[in-house]
Amino acid sequence: MSIFGLGRVGLPLAIVIARSGLRVIGVDVDESKIAKINKGEMPFYYPAMQEWLGEVVASRKLVASTHSKESIEQSDVIIVTVGTPTGSRCELDYSQIHSVLNEVGKANLKNKAVIIRSTSVPGTLANIVMPLLFKATGLRPGVDFGLAVCPERIVEGQAHRELYEVPEIVGGTGDLSNVIALQLFKRINPQKKILILAPTGAELAKLFTNIYRYVQFALANEFAIWAERYGEDAHQIIQAANESYPRSSIPRPGFAGGPCLAKDGLLLDNNTTYSSIVSVAWKLNEAVPQHVVTQLMKEMGSLYGMKIAVLGLAFKANSDDVRSSPSVKLIETLKGYGAEVLVHDPYVKDTMSLSDALKNPEVVVIANNHSAFKNLAGKIDSSGCQIVYDVWGIFEASDFTRARYKRFGSAK
Amino acid sequence: MSIFGLGRVGLPLAIVIARSGLRVIGVDVDESKIAKINKGEMPFYYPAMQEWLGEVVASRKLVASTHSKESIEQSDVIIVTVGTPTGSRCELDYSQIHSVLNEVGKANLKNKAVIIRSTSVPGTLANIVMPLLFKATGLRPGVDFGLAVCPERIVEGQAHRELYEVPEIVGGTGDLSNVIALQLFKRINPQKKILILAPTGAELAKLFTNIYRYVQFALANEFAIWAERYGEDAHQIIQAANESYPRSSIPRPGFAGGPCLAKDGLLLDNNTTYSSIVSVAWKLNEAVPQHVVTQLMKEMGSLYGMKIAVLGLAFKANSDDVRSSPSVKLIETLKGYGAEVLVHDPYVKDTMSLSDALKNPEVVVIANNHSAFKNLAGKIDSSGCQIVYDVWGIFEASDFTRARYKRFGSAK
Repeated sequence: MSIFGLGRVGLPLAIVIARSGLRVIGVDVDESKIAKINKGEMPFYYPAMQEWLGEVVASRKLVASTHSKESIEQSDVIIVTVGTPTGSRCELDYSQIHSVLNEVGKANLKNKAVIIRSTSVPGTLANIVMPLLFKATGLRPGVDFGLAVCPERIVEGQAHRELYEVPEIVGGTGDLSNVIALQLFKRINPQKKILILAPTGAELAKLFTNIYRYVQFALANEFAIWAERYGEDAHQIIQAANESYPRSSIPRPGFAGGPCLAKDGLLLDNNTTYSSIVSVAWKLNEAVPQHVVTQLMKEMGSLYGMKIAVLGLAFKANSDDVRSSPSVKLIETLKGYGAEVLVHDPYVKDTMSLSDALKNPEVVVIANNHSAFKNLAGKIDSSGCQIVYDVWGIFEASDFTRARYKRFGSAK
Repeated sequence: MSIFGLGRVGLPLAIVIARSGLRVIGVDVDESKIAKINKGEMPFYYPAMQEWLGEVVASRKLVASTHSKESIEQSDVIIVTVGTPTGSRCELDYSQIHSVLNEVGKANLKNKAVIIRSTSVPGTLANIVMPLLFKATGLRPGVDFGLAVCPERIVEGQAHRELYEVPEIVGGTGDLSNVIALQLFKRINPQKKILILAPTGAELAKLFTNIYRYVQFALANEFAIWAERYGEDAHQIIQAANESYPRSSIPRPGFAGGPCLAKDGLLLDNNTTYSSIVSVAWKLNEAVPQHVVTQLMKEMGSLYGMKIAVLGLAFKANSDDVRSSPSVKLIETLKGYGAEVLVHDPYVKDTMSLSDALKNPEVVVIANNHSAFKNLAGKIDSSGCQIVYDVWGIFEASDFTRARYKRFGSAK
């Protein structure tokens, strides 16, 4: 079988399927990534997968390649995991999907199966993939070859656990497609639950899953703004509201972004001409970086020429993934205001060292909740900064003796 | 001690505190309600509280009265639970609170304590109650007398269990106030958790709790509309998205309203000039009754002169509470379209019997998810109606052999 796209979705899936004993060809256009993988090196930060990658590369169960044609010919099942990013006007960029499907459509798909794992607009399988492959091959999807949507629902960095445990939603065109997808995923774990929906239903299920989380984060951020306005601390209030209460699990406020949660709502929202909860949630989460800048200006006046250390660039704790990271937006905004921004992230290459970032900053912003940051209060305090602005509320005011401490969501 | 307001918040609390052995005077302006309570009869539907009410009335631990002056004079602690409804333009109606506080302010409050349990706008204690009582009595809140916010967070109909189990959030003016509130609530259950916040923090915590739930219901309803638009069934998709998935507990779609959840967001939302998530959630939930009417018209054409049975009037399952019920809005809307509406609710007085409501209706709408409704498919099917529209998705299409079945959130 082959897996197209060796990113944060495709590569962990390739490794886990290879571990189940199937032979997997991983296909990607990025030659340097292919070279790394074939040497057994993870091309991004994911220590828990490193050993498994070494094993499946050594046993030749996983081979990475740039040759899509040969890979498809040698495969019974083709899984498409390529990226579906959004463009600058929130439209879905289908170019990678089209590029792969055009290759797939050139092969003889008779009795093979194509599984779409990339996140997409509801109706993509029915309205784009099916007619495309039918026109290209003359074969009937769901009859002459299998075709299914099986959306990825794993949390980044937990694929090594969740690919085994989280149920698989399968939206096949016809029973044949469902059976093939079921057999494939049962290889990973015979106990894995397989939930069958229609293809468009499976596409919607993926979006609902991510939007649900994203709206919770947005609501926590709205609560943060309310608490600031009323002179209170949202972190403290949310903790009390949740404690032993059977109907609340309000998240803590903080940056909400990344390449999945924010985008997935837009895929639905492009299809309405009205404001939806999703669009307001997006608007709110996307406003948090500017809100941080505005709060800093209330404390410090103009930021022009000010030295500001931003700790954390990735969008997610203990990750090196900077795609659609609110921290990137914060940094660009701060630069726009004329600040000199020093960026440190322990997981992101090409950022400064911690000690360089903490050389006499006037402001330190905690822009990610990496576990490693929790021990840094002393170092930050002795950097000479006047104020620590904690977007995530990972510290308390009492952690600092010299610097003033402010957190997002608190007027205190 | 005395409790002002013997509604769905005040009366269960009065009963539970009386059961703890304290002598409670329940105060209300409604004489017929007072008479009922003093005969040991619940004035609203709450079977689980009936026996306890009988016991505490018989033992004279609970006495209901219309005399506020004497009640306050005889009490060390005064709990205010009167209603804080919103008016037709979503402004909070403080009249009941003002009315009680004006009485309370006439008494000598020295060494007494006043506890505000009514839901209110954040800052109500600090900006209204404190200056009002200080001006009326000349006594210092938190020093000369105790004053605290202790918001109700019980789900209606579960007070007999949750008043013992759910932590109490206490927002006192000063330590004295907190200690008095703590001692009172520990009487109910010594193991009950007491969580201390500032008064405005406690007011916010109550709103966050209810808004969190309300937004979840709104999002489920947004998902329902999306699913309809894409030709799918939201109930089925939500079930799959939630199943064994560690990050989803998306509610089922349905009417979301009532006197608490919808209102509480407005209390915050009146204080912003922009659309918030709360305001969009409100807009969406409030649009569901009209959406049901529009969907019915797609199926049936004009509803003018049509006989429509609406089963369920209360806003909540197994309750007789019709305040701010979306079903009431649905019925008014259907009448506006010229339909003849037959309303049955097993718990709501002055509604029709089931058999009268099911006399040859053309449409039956399931507008509440009362447990008792789940066995009605056969009766509804044989009523001769052409279509069953199920707002809550409590039935399946296969439950009906004669009538067509449609549910909110499904295009099928």
